[in-house]
Parts: sequence; C-alpha cells; structure tokens
Amino acid sequence: VESDAEAAHAAQTSTVISKLQKIYKSKVLPFEKRYNYPYFFSPHLTDSEFLSKPQVMLVGQYSVGKTTFIKYLLGRSFPGQRIGPEPTTDRFTVVINGPEERTIPGNALSVHPSVPYRGLERFGVNFLNRFEGSVMPSSVLQKISLIDTPGILAGEKQRLERGYDFTEVVKWFAERADLIIVLFDAHKLDISDELKNAIDALKGHDEKIRCILNKADQIDRQRLMRVYGALLWSMGKVISTPEVLKVYVGSFWSEPLQNQENKELFEAEENDLMNDLRQLPKQSAVRKINELVKRIRKARVLGYIISHLRSQMPSMMGKEKKQKQLIEDLPNQFRSCMKKYNLASGDFPDLEMFKEKLRECKFSEFKTLSTSLMSDLDKVLSKDIPALMDALPNENDSAEVLNMKFAA
Amino acid sequence: VESDAEAAHAAQTSTVISKLQKIYKSKVLPFEKRYNYPYFFSPHLTDSEFLSKPQVMLVGQYSVGKTTFIKYLLGRSFPGQRIGPEPTTDRFTVVINGPEERTIPGNALSVHPSVPYRGLERFGVNFLNRFEGSVMPSSVLQKISLIDTPGILAGEKQRLERGYDFTEVVKWFAERADLIIVLFDAHKLDISDELKNAIDALKGHDEKIRCILNKADQIDRQRLMRVYGALLWSMGKVISTPEVLKVYVGSFWSEPLQNQENKELFEAEENDLMNDLRQLPKQSAVRKINELVKRIRKARVLGYIISHLRSQMPSMMGKEKKQKQLIEDLPNQFRSCMKKYNLASGDFPDLEMFKEKLRECKFSEFKTLSTSLMSDLDKVLSKDIPALMDALPNENDSAEVLNMKFAA
Ligand SMILES: Nc1ncnc2c1ncn2[C@@H]1O[C@H](COP(=O)(O)OP(=O)(O)OP(=O)(O)O)[C@@H](O)[C@H]1O
Ligand SMILES: Nc1ncnc2c1ncn2[C@@H]1O[C@H](COP(=O)(O)OP(=O)(O)OP(=O)(O)O)[C@@H](O)[C@H]1O
Ligand SMILES: [Mg+2]
Ligand SMILES: [Mg+2]
Repeated sequence: VESDAEAAHAAQTSTVISKLQKIYKSKVLPFEKRYNYPYFFSPHLTDSEFLSKPQVMLVGQYSVGKTTFIKYLLGRSFPGQRIGPEPTTDRFTVVINGPEERTIPGNALSVHPSVPYRGLERFGVNFLNRFEGSVMPSSVLQKISLIDTPGILAGEKQRLERGYDFTEVVKWFAERADLIIVLFDAHKLDISDELKNAIDALKGHDEKIRCILNKADQIDRQRLMRVYGALLWSMGKVISTPEVLKVYVGSFWSEPLQNQENKELFEAEENDLMNDLRQLPKQSAVRKINELVKRIRKARVLGYIISHLRSQMPSMMGKEKKQKQLIEDLPNQFRSCMKKYNLASGDFPDLEMFKEKLRECKFSEFKTLSTSLMSDLDKVLSKDIPALMDALPNENDSAEVLNMKFAA
Repeated sequence: VESDAEAAHAAQTSTVISKLQKIYKSKVLPFEKRYNYPYFFSPHLTDSEFLSKPQVMLVGQYSVGKTTFIKYLLGRSFPGQRIGPEPTTDRFTVVINGPEERTIPGNALSVHPSVPYRGLERFGVNFLNRFEGSVMPSSVLQKISLIDTPGILAGEKQRLERGYDFTEVVKWFAERADLIIVLFDAHKLDISDELKNAIDALKGHDEKIRCILNKADQIDRQRLMRVYGALLWSMGKVISTPEVLKVYVGSFWSEPLQNQENKELFEAEENDLMNDLRQLPKQSAVRKINELVKRIRKARVLGYIISHLRSQMPSMMGKEKKQKQLIEDLPNQFRSCMKKYNLASGDFPDLEMFKEKLRECKFSEFKTLSTSLMSDLDKVLSKDIPALMDALPNENDSAEVLNMKFAA
C-alpha cells in the first residue's frame, strides 16, 4: 500500500534525477568532450545510467531461496524463472519492468541502450550466454530492478563448471547495485569458505549488504537464535564495518509457516525489510548525485592539467621534445596545477596511468583553458548540486511539503 | 537434581585429582627439589592447587546482574553480597564452600593455605583491601567456586577510582579460572571500548568464555534478536576463535518474567547453561593434568641442563672461569642437551631469562643426573598420566561403568 507521501517522494526523486541528467548534458558533457574525459577515464554517461532503477542483487548458496524470494516479492512468477531443490538458476537474470512478459538473451541485453549492462561485454560470450533479461509489468519493478544470480557452488565446481569468472561478475554487479541481499538457509546454515570468497567479492560495499536468514520457520526458537548468532559472528569477522549487519529472519515465500511460534517476529522482520527496500529510490538518487560529483571533480582537474600542458607547448619547433620533457616532469606539472588552481591532491589521476595515456597524445592539439566552461562546471558544484540535494525528499516531509519543494 | 551417574562422575573426578596429587608429591616434587625448579620457574605446587574447585569468574559492566546471578545460582544470599542499581560491588569476592557463613578479608585470604590466592599479593595492599572471601555451606559451592568482580567502569574512572590495576587482576583470575562468564544487559547493551579492553584482558582464554545476555525478558522478541546479533557481531570481532561464542539468553534471577513470550526459550537456555557448569569439574581435572604434564616436561629439561652443566665443571681450579664460559656458550649447551637426550626445543626455557638466573648460581653445587629420579619422571609421563586420563569419567559412562573404573 503506497501512501500519498510515498508517491510524492517517488515523483520528487525522479524529478531530481532528470534535473541531474539535464545538468550533466548541458554543463558537464561539453567539458568532458573538450578534454577527452573518456580517453583518460570512462565513457560519457548514457541516459540509461541516469534512468536505471535502483538495483537489488540476490546472492547466496544454491537452494537458499533466491529465486523464490524474487517471485514472492513480485507476487507471481517472472519469465524464465526456475525454482527447484538442485542447483537451479544457471544464469544471471535481471528482472526489469516492461509492458509485456518476455525474456531477452544476454547478448542482446548487454547492448540495449535503455539498460546499463554494456560493461558486461568484457566477460565474454561465455558469460553473455548465461546472462538474461526477464521483463514483466510489475509495480515493484517500476521502483527497483532485481538481479537473480546462480547459487554459489563449492570452490572447484565454481571454476570448472562455469565458463566465466563468477566472482568478477558478482563484483561488477556489486559495484552497480544499490542493495545486495545475501540469503542463507536457517535450516542448514553453511558459511563455507566459498561463500566467504563471494563475500570478499562484495568488499568495499559493506554498507549495501543485507542478509536474509530464510526458511527460519523450519527450526525451533532456540536453534534459530543460535543460527542467527552464528551468522552474525561469522559475518562480523569478514565484514569490517562496526555497524551491525542487518539480518532479516523469516520465510520468504507464500506457503504457510511450518512452525507458527515465531509468526509475529517474522511479520515484523518482513515489514522492516520492505521498508528497507522502499528507501532505495531515494538513496539511489543520492548515490547518483555523489558519483556525478566525484566525476566532475576529476573532470575539472583533467581540464586544468590538459590546458596547463598545452599552454607550455612551443608554437613552431621542438614540439615532440617539449612534450617528452613535460611527461618526464609530470609530477612537477601536477604540483604547479595544484598550487595555481588550488586543487585537491585526491582528485588527481594516477600518475603512471596518466603518463601512459599522455604518450599517445599530441599536446599541441590539446584544448586551452575555457574559462566559461570551467565556471559553468564550478557553478554545478557550488550551486546546482546543493540545490538538488535540498530538493530531495526528506523522511519527515509530508505530501504537502514535498509538493512545495517540487514546485520550487 | 543429581543423578547417580553424576555423583559417580564427581567421585571419580576427585579420585583422579588426588591420585594426581600423590604422583606429584612422590615423583615430581623430589625431582623439582633436586634441580631447584622454583628458583628457575614457579613455586612448588601446594595442596590447594590440586584441591581447589573449578573457578567460575563473572565479569561485565556494572548493574548487569553479576552478583544477582550468583545469588540465583546459590539459591540464596551469600555473606557480604551487595546488590543494587548503582555500581555496587566494589571488590573481588571469591565465594567458596565452608561449614558456616562468614567473610574473610583479602589480606588473610591471600595467605590462607587451603585456597590458591597467594599470587594475588603482587597486586599490593590496595588490592587486597578490595579482595574478600565469602564462605557458606552450599551444594553448588561443593563443586565450583564463584568469583564476583566489580562492574567495569568507563576508562578514566577505572584508573582513577581504583587504587590497583583492575585489568591485570582480571587477567590473573582469567588464567586460573575454568570458566569466565561475561554478562550483558539486553535492555541496554553497551559493548563499550572499556568492555573491549576487559575482553582483551581475557585474551588467550577464548575457549573459557561464555556470555549471558541477561534481563532479556525486558524487551520484545525482535529487539532481543537484534541485541543478540549485535553482541555476537561485536564479540566476533574481538574474539579470534572460529567456533561461535556461546551466549545464554534469559533473566537470571528468581523474580517472575516481565514478558512471558520467550519463557520456553529462556528455560531451554538456562538448562544449557547449567549443563555447561556441570561439566566443569571434569574439565577442570583434565586442565590440571595438562598443566602438570607441561610442568613435568619443563622440569625434565631443567634436570638435563643442570646436570649437563655440572658435568663440565672442573673439580679443583678455574671454576668461576669455566662457569662464565658455559653461560657464554649456553645456546650450544642447550643444543647438545637436546641432541644427547632427544628433547623437544619447545620445552627449553627462555635463553636470556635462564642466563640471568645462572649468573647467580654456583655450578659446582649443582646436582648430578639422577637416573632413578629421571626414570621415575619418565614413567609418570608414559604410564601414570595416561592411566589417569583413562580413568576420567566419560560423558557416556553409566554409574556402573564408572564404579568399575573406580575400582580398577
Ligand atoms: N521460504 C522457504 N521455505 C521453505 N522452502 C523454500 C523457501 N524458499 C524456497 N524454498 C524451496 O527451496 C528450494 C530452492 O529454492 P530456489 O530455487 O528459489 O533457490 P535458489 O536460491 O534460487 O537456488 P539456486 O541457487 O539453485 O537457483 C525450492 O525447492 C524451493 O521451493
Ligand atoms: N535478571 C534481572 N532482571 C532484572 N533486573 C535485574 C536482574 N538481575 C539483577 N537485576 C537488578 O539489576 C541491578 C544490578 O544488579 P547487581 O547488583 O546484581 O548487578 P552487578 O552486575 O553485580 O552490578 P555491580 O557491577 O555494580 O556489582 C539490581 O537492581 C538488580 O536487582
Ligand atoms: Mg535460483
Ligand atoms: Mg555486583
């Protein structure tokens, strides 16, 4: 059940995102183009990167109920879904919203412009054959996308049976996910080395991780406490945050509980989890803003370095020699830029990588400093972004306050 | 309620211990005396060290219910007991069995021959004034002794308000305890830095540590799960064993539960804890045997070294010079002993400490190798001790089997 305030939140959040996109296109993209940002760092942002829904990835050993959880969340089966007692799901499946039910093969999905999966090409055709889109109309999928993954197998099997690097793929998705849910079977908890490896693949994303202790209705209360404690004990050793990992306990499917004694607990837990999921769209907006800020700071420094190098090039003779000298002298060049423009050292690119890249360039073709583009960029950081942050819905905002913000 | 088998277990265990004591006195002590073991290592073992009950130490922040737990376990108040909402217990209290109720001041208690607290003298009179014995007749205290401790205070207070090194005292007891119970208040769980320090003081005794999450009836089931999880999460980070820490959840006093919903869980937990305590006498026997074995191995090596050094002394002239040379050459002396008598390097004393000690000795007064004493000692390790281990009661032994073993 969605309240007025929630609906207003959602509308507000998507307005913020589309404003962010406009800012990028009008003020950041021209700057990125002038100084060839993609050559030095990463491709220009596409629409799909702004418009993509928050992504929730499900991971865990086989048969813990990942696929069943998605089905439960959606209220019905999704195209291509396979549920069963053996290791069942054999592919990474992104479950996304769309007008009609269908599956999209991985090769096609990765190049589709409206979804942000282009980067998966690097894992090769073996992986893309095990990658699939599952499209269906769903009110849940209007807010978030879900990523189902194959169950984690024991170490050797993992490597032999899959034709691609499972852990690297999980890492790729983890970086882009807004939430990572690790499922466990309370009935046969097994925090094996392999799962620890998978959790290592989630390193650096500790704050995105939640756990589900599933099938918890199959054991009695005391055993449940022990299993729950054992899970937190072990996870505490591999996850470094001091903040306690959230573990939701319950049985996430539509069948009746096998053991009723924890019914109320499970209901409260499910409630909490759903609230957690409901926060995602807003958090996702904050994350997108943050990432754009990081990107702009890098672009700004790039602009200063490039134009600084350019400004020292002779107009006629000895270009090649000068260019070599400048590359040799790059640490000093960085330092003078830092002083002259008052830049943060943390925003500078890796020296060696940058040297490599520069060797393939012609400095004389570099663009000069554009004070107007630079001041546009500065304004984005000092004015536009803070305004967007203010416009983001606040937990406590009522529908009316939101509408006011929205109108502003 | 004590079963026949349990009573037989207890009798069997104490028989084993008194046999151990006899072995020590007849075969180990003469050896220790011949080679002056106390000078190089630690005092001869006293009767109290054999006969002392398994010790259970209670630690935790103030007001978590340590003193109340002891009262609950004993079924009634103990002499000198103080319970209250402020930081209440201001001393280390050992609660021990005795024919009539009384307290014994710390200074007297530390020198009392029937209890193993002599070593506490090192913490000075400031500590001994805050040390007390509480004696009462109790069936529980016939099996174990309990150590109540002052609540752990916040860092600065700890140092300023106590006139002794609290952490070092905790360490001293931890080394000698058979079980260390760390109590927490479920109602206001606070795993502060100070408590972490205290837990650091318990380092190296991880396998002795149990936790009690007390007053658990004051919160609802979902909060209890969270608190329990948070406790294991945090403890997992400070305790290094992979084996999950045992945490017993409940309300350990005789008042009725405030919240009945977890009644059965708490009963099951209390049962488990009592079983854990019931195992102590037997475990304690194993621990005593183990420690004696370690001691004998050290004594054996000491005997070989001392007699080896003695054997190289001139009978008339140049004693001092030779002694200096031997000390200089101690690493080689160790090596030749190791080869000659086939000794394990791990049983050798610390080289520097040993050199220091030797400088104060007259090698010419050292005793020669006594093959009869040495062969007695070897027999203790190869025959007597294994026989004692076999005689220890087994979990699954019935009363009859135990009586047979006992008779043997
Ligand atoms: N909450 C639950 N309680 C009991 N059984 C469940 C629950 N959820 C799923 N199951 C059962 O567990 C089995 C595995 O379910 P499912 O296929 O969803 O797991 P999975 O984690 O997706 O496994 P895989 O990694 O092999 O794809 C199925 O038989 C399913 O019916
Ligand atoms: N299981 C329980 N449930 C509720 N209250 C309890 C429980 N056990 C003890 N209390 C109350 O908590 C307070 C502190 O108890 P107690 O003095 O036993 O704690 P303590 O850990 O020994 O404290 P200190 O470190 O100050 O000696 C007392 O008021 C006591 O009645
Ligand atoms: Mg599956
Ligand atoms: Mg007390």
